[in-house]
Amino acid sequence: MPLADDLFQRVRDGDRGALARAVTLLESSRAEDRTTARRLVELSLPHSGGGLRLGITGIPGVGKSTLIDALGVAAIERGHSVAVLAVDPSSARSGGSILGDKTRMERLAQRPEAFVRPTAASGALGGVARRTRETILLCEAAGFSHVLVETVGVGQSELDVDRMTDLNLLLLITGAGDELQGIKRGIMESADVLVLTKVDAAGSARAKEAQGDLRNAIGLLPPRSNGRRAGVWQTDALTGKGIVALWDHLQDLHRGILADGALGAKRQAQAVGWFEQAVDEGLRRLFEADEQAAAARTALAERVSSGALNPFQAADELLGLFRKGGAPLP
Amino acid sequence: MPLADDLFQRVRDGDRGALARAVTLLESSRAEDRTTARRLVELSLPHSGGGLRLGITGIPGVGKSTLIDALGVAAIERGHSVAVLAVDPSSARSGGSILGDKTRMERLAQRPEAFVRPTAASGALGGVARRTRETILLCEAAGFSHVLVETVGVGQSELDVDRMTDLNLLLLITGAGDELQGIKRGIMESADVLVLTKVDAAGSARAKEAQGDLRNAIGLLPPRSNGRRAGVWQTDALTGKGIVALWDHLQDLHRGILADGALGAKRQAQAVGWFEQAVDEGLRRLFEADEQAAAARTALAERVSSGALNPFQAADELLGLFRKGGAPLP
Repeated sequence: MPLADDLFQRVRDGDRGALARAVTLLESSRAEDRTTARRLVELSLPHSGGGLRLGITGIPGVGKSTLIDALGVAAIERGHSVAVLAVDPSSARSGGSILGDKTRMERLAQRPEAFVRPTAASGALGGVARRTRETILLCEAAGFSHVLVETVGVGQSELDVDRMTDLNLLLLITGAGDELQGIKRGIMESADVLVLTKVDAAGSARAKEAQGDLRNAIGLLPPRSNGRRAGVWQTDALTGKGIVALWDHLQDLHRGILADGALGAKRQAQAVGWFEQAVDEGLRRLFEADEQAAAARTALAERVSSGALNPFQAADELLGLFRKGGAPLP
Repeated sequence: MPLADDLFQRVRDGDRGALARAVTLLESSRAEDRTTARRLVELSLPHSGGGLRLGITGIPGVGKSTLIDALGVAAIERGHSVAVLAVDPSSARSGGSILGDKTRMERLAQRPEAFVRPTAASGALGGVARRTRETILLCEAAGFSHVLVETVGVGQSELDVDRMTDLNLLLLITGAGDELQGIKRGIMESADVLVLTKVDAAGSARAKEAQGDLRNAIGLLPPRSNGRRAGVWQTDALTGKGIVALWDHLQDLHRGILADGALGAKRQAQAVGWFEQAVDEGLRRLFEADEQAAAARTALAERVSSGALNPFQAADELLGLFRKGGAPLP
């Protein structure tokens, strides 16, 4: 596997172009790339796991990119390095913003200690790309001490991100009691830290009130699996308010869950989840490699399309063929 | 299969308790319920497909429930019947709102011509429950002329809903240019109709401006697969502004895509998508029924958890066992 090994060596040597190319390979769904991707992940594994994996979620317009820009620059000024994986679930079809587009994370993207990677989620998982988990490992092997996974979401995404990161930030915006409407139990339970964004001088009193409401609400929830309850922080990325304090809190929290074993337990559970995903994908590959089933699939789909068969009947027929076949492991 | 047949007969006779029980069976993941569920769907198929299937998405707080309440009542006053499937992706863990909760769709829920069913999405699909597709068919067999699927979302959910409905509404709120921030190409492309909500007298000028901006934006997109571009509507569910006009527009649009074949083509493609999903699920059942693989799975998961094996290696080992085995079709 010379391609993967050579590319990986360059990633380890700090070559950002090689890292970008390796991430592209991880994200590829072509069969030959999957083999290279797997080798890249296996090479990364021994060099990964030492850093902080941070999820950052919130509705559109809450200020995720701006906060990450500010947090990332603050982190770099403290001697850290930061990789940002920005997953955009809305670009499954043709991709990209058409309105209000802007260069995101401008300051951070210019820093050599940072790597910013936007990814279109191709619809497989809620709001998180299929390969984000593998990309985290690769970024760690590339030497980044902090990997931030940003995703839009009001529901599924938070849960997905929680399956691959150590700590999760939920960003909320103050204003008109709106933050009370969108916040459901399941979402709040996925967060280790709640962050009120865009708290400028004019909105300070309102933010304080929201902070109190959120703290009361958190008190009604069971603690996180790491035994802790989420704190509520006020920030304003434009003026820098609360940014350094938030970053320091995240470091403290990470050290805490590392020391008391909660982080180890979470990562063990995540590895099992990853195994389950690998089984699912392998099963699908096994099935797709079955020539008899593959040949029948198109014809059956046509009969479903024309209404001659219902989807269940067609699936039964196809799976029956697969069961009779015996293709070797691909 | 006397249970399914008996229950189905009562659903057909208009028994709402039976319908609620049947939906619960569809949503169950217990193996014995899956057989009953499948029979219910096969019984429903010949009695389904004649109505309008409408997706309704938008961020939390945009006013989905309030709009559906108003639209539903208007529809009933025009002689229609309405089933509402409200999918909440945030309740995967412990379910339910903890803040700002309220009775949703109060007026509609009291009408005998309506059926309102909240469902927690258990994380399998973006923001849409695994069984929503089947539930639509059952509601149609129960006699509902309109099935509305409501889901929260900024990304994945819109795409999922588009895979099972005829027309999709994207709800947007006017104000502070915010609607321009959250709107991505992929999301706009999934919508047949854009609806500005909460347009009261005070916000009328702003809404008009937003309407113009959105129309310009839509002009830059390719048309929908039905050959049309989304219109932009102003509504205020509280005063009833625009509600009847919107409903009539939806009926016209539906008649139009039925007449020109676009609806038929979309539904054929959806049936093939459903077939693919049935194959995936059947494949997983096949695998889970393999005793040798099932026995090895727990031990392998433990070795992954302890770090003795990486997830890929463990998956390979498990799939190798499955391949050697030969359990009959469950």
